[in-house]
Amino acid sequence: MSDVLIADSRRTAIARDAAATLLSHCEAIAKCTDRPGEILRTFLSPAMERVHQLVRPWFEVAGMTVNVDRAGNLCAVYPADSGEDSTRLLIGSHLDTVPNAGAYDGVLGVLMGLALVEGLGGRRLPYSIEVIGFSDEEGTRFGVPFIGSRAVVGGLDDRLLESKDAEGVTIGEALKGFCDLHPEAVDALLAPQTVGYLEFHIEQGPVLESRNLALGTVEALAGQSRFHLQFRGRAGHAGTTPMHLRRDALAAGAEWMTRVEAIASSYEGLVATVGQIVAEPGAVNVIPGMVRCSLDLRHREDAVRRDACRAIVDEARSIAERRGLLVEADQYHSQPAVHFDQEMIGVADIAMERAGYPTIRMTSGAGHDAMVMAQHLPSTMIFLRSPGGVSHHPDERVLEADVAAAIHTGLYFLDQFALFAKKKESDRSA
Amino acid sequence: MSDVLIADSRRTAIARDAAATLLSHCEAIAKCTDRPGEILRTFLSPAMERVHQLVRPWFEVAGMTVNVDRAGNLCAVYPADSGEDSTRLLIGSHLDTVPNAGAYDGVLGVLMGLALVEGLGGRRLPYSIEVIGFSDEEGTRFGVPFIGSRAVVGGLDDRLLESKDAEGVTIGEALKGFCDLHPEAVDALLAPQTVGYLEFHIEQGPVLESRNLALGTVEALAGQSRFHLQFRGRAGHAGTTPMHLRRDALAAGAEWMTRVEAIASSYEGLVATVGQIVAEPGAVNVIPGMVRCSLDLRHREDAVRRDACRAIVDEARSIAERRGLLVEADQYHSQPAVHFDQEMIGVADIAMERAGYPTIRMTSGAGHDAMVMAQHLPSTMIFLRSPGGVSHHPDERVLEADVAAAIHTGLYFLDQFALFAKKKESDRSA
Repeated sequence: MSDVLIADSRRTAIARDAAATLLSHCEAIAKCTDRPGEILRTFLSPAMERVHQLVRPWFEVAGMTVNVDRAGNLCAVYPADSGEDSTRLLIGSHLDTVPNAGAYDGVLGVLMGLALVEGLGGRRLPYSIEVIGFSDEEGTRFGVPFIGSRAVVGGLDDRLLESKDAEGVTIGEALKGFCDLHPEAVDALLAPQTVGYLEFHIEQGPVLESRNLALGTVEALAGQSRFHLQFRGRAGHAGTTPMHLRRDALAAGAEWMTRVEAIASSYEGLVATVGQIVAEPGAVNVIPGMVRCSLDLRHREDAVRRDACRAIVDEARSIAERRGLLVEADQYHSQPAVHFDQEMIGVADIAMERAGYPTIRMTSGAGHDAMVMAQHLPSTMIFLRSPGGVSHHPDERVLEADVAAAIHTGLYFLDQFALFAKKKESDRSA
Repeated sequence: MSDVLIADSRRTAIARDAAATLLSHCEAIAKCTDRPGEILRTFLSPAMERVHQLVRPWFEVAGMTVNVDRAGNLCAVYPADSGEDSTRLLIGSHLDTVPNAGAYDGVLGVLMGLALVEGLGGRRLPYSIEVIGFSDEEGTRFGVPFIGSRAVVGGLDDRLLESKDAEGVTIGEALKGFCDLHPEAVDALLAPQTVGYLEFHIEQGPVLESRNLALGTVEALAGQSRFHLQFRGRAGHAGTTPMHLRRDALAAGAEWMTRVEAIASSYEGLVATVGQIVAEPGAVNVIPGMVRCSLDLRHREDAVRRDACRAIVDEARSIAERRGLLVEADQYHSQPAVHFDQEMIGVADIAMERAGYPTIRMTSGAGHDAMVMAQHLPSTMIFLRSPGGVSHHPDERVLEADVAAAIHTGLYFLDQFALFAKKKESDRSA
């Protein structure tokens, strides 16, 4: 098949060697931290600058042109065989971290782009590849996530630019300071010839591990609802109030939490979590008169999510009413689901099959840069198994064999994307 | 009947007037506080001294001899008709409070003793009456309750005397300082001729109110067990961990709390309370990996309490096991039940009947000075209805009509106690 740029027999060996290199690169990047003793890299921080200095030569040696844009994103372009105006595939993820992070969340997706270009061994494709290392996805510095990807798609509005970090510096001021220091920075801009976005990322959950799979194709990012709930009963003496005369807010909350779990389990793919709980007055010998708790609920279908929210809040009301309590449920956040492009998902599935790995379609319960990019580009993600489902933690890991599987699959993705790009190219010409 | 010292027809009127006086006395005492803006009186504090100065003349006008003992207890003796060595009835409660207290807890029981002596209108009984206002029952200053009553019965051992207050002062040092300032203080000592202890107290619970009753006879103080429980599951990402792969410590805790409520309700008279709960890490978007909570369990029969404790801890273990969690249950406190003297309970019941009030036998879920005294004397308590079940709170109240009922009943108690005292007197002589 003429589209295959590298012989199948060589790909396994390339992927194996590239996986080892990628993991050693992750380790080197992990040493660039803003807080000694743990991994922490925030938006436009000194550690992020050190990462840029560290990785720039890696990309350049692979034949790529490296720029940093005015939002602090690292952008490396590998030209197409057919000139500068050819269609482009964007491969990316983020280089920033949460506090006390692991070494792979984000970083792995950026280095996957590098590894795939390296895997081409200098051969050019009918489309160009841009690898992007977003400057902020986690929102650690400003409490606002996706600053890097939002900047690229023009999504940093004035209100967002006013968000302040712990020192009172706004995003707008931080960006201006960065540009003053780096006058060579290019505009943060999605190249108009870009026709697709691919992001590799560790799963951050236990699904692939539980199914003994290395990789999964992400078809959607779950929508999310968040609530504050408050159960108000009547505090009372733990010794002198008989069970049948109590209005115990924690007993009501406990009954509700068991229903949250049961209702969530009754919808396929739904997750619902009570992560915070406070009982007042909070004394050993006083019946709790008030309970405040959180509810986080996610599903790939917004209608299902809304339906489950309603059922769970109704349940709180009926439990409270039966027990003579009051309940308030305040939905303070609602984020719609994002569904990836079916053709891009198909490209990923075919690549995985050709590379010899079982395919599985997944929903991501966490947010990713792909959520922002999917509003503007046909996008998809490929997840790599997370041992123990651990992420955002120093124990976060990824298996070398799974990285090799991802690179192996990625090389087939590049083949298959040529067909997709060709179609988009003819759409553009038409 | 020759034992009746006051004509039945006069008792209702006496009780009504005395109730109004008693409540105005409570209000006056409430103004003696160690913390402006709320009621707080602690062991040996300036506010307690002001109470002593305030009430001393009230007792003296009633024909009583007032002393303060070396533990700061106020003791007022009303002599018998037959000389100093006659048997004695002790009527008491405490004059200290919790922080931000109500005006009746403790104080009411001391003033009931005064009101009953006043109700005699100067007539002497065949036994003496000592009214005691204990200096500490709540344990607010030293975190150790019953210092006043323990001192009287010789129950302050060396270990207790080493307990320190927030300023690092030990009980021993505080007592010595008090005696240095008050060299006239008498020994803290239960008079050897004392043959019974009676304590009036607000119920601090909703039982009498729920049954539309003014008074109840207490036959036992519930035993108490306290546990710390810890459920250890696995923290995880709220978005990426499917319901069936979770080890949610809070979901396990919630299931257990619903079982605590159900098991407690299945034993007549048992109360079980989870008053404190902490879920960690405590973030909206993280599945709780650990839950710590308290359990307080009380019943009048120690065997029932032990049985229920076992059932509830077993339930925690089986829930944890089924969910793949670990649980630890640490019993850090176990206080046996105290059963009051059947004859004294009978005296109270008869008095209540003669005064024309329905009788009800109750268990107190809270601790009282009577718990200490019952180890040394035939004892009982009479509870007065607590509107709303409220106590240890500025909203704590008592109805004037219920106080009148208590005084009315108390006067019949004094009659009936004469028979009891006579029997004890002949036991002593024999």
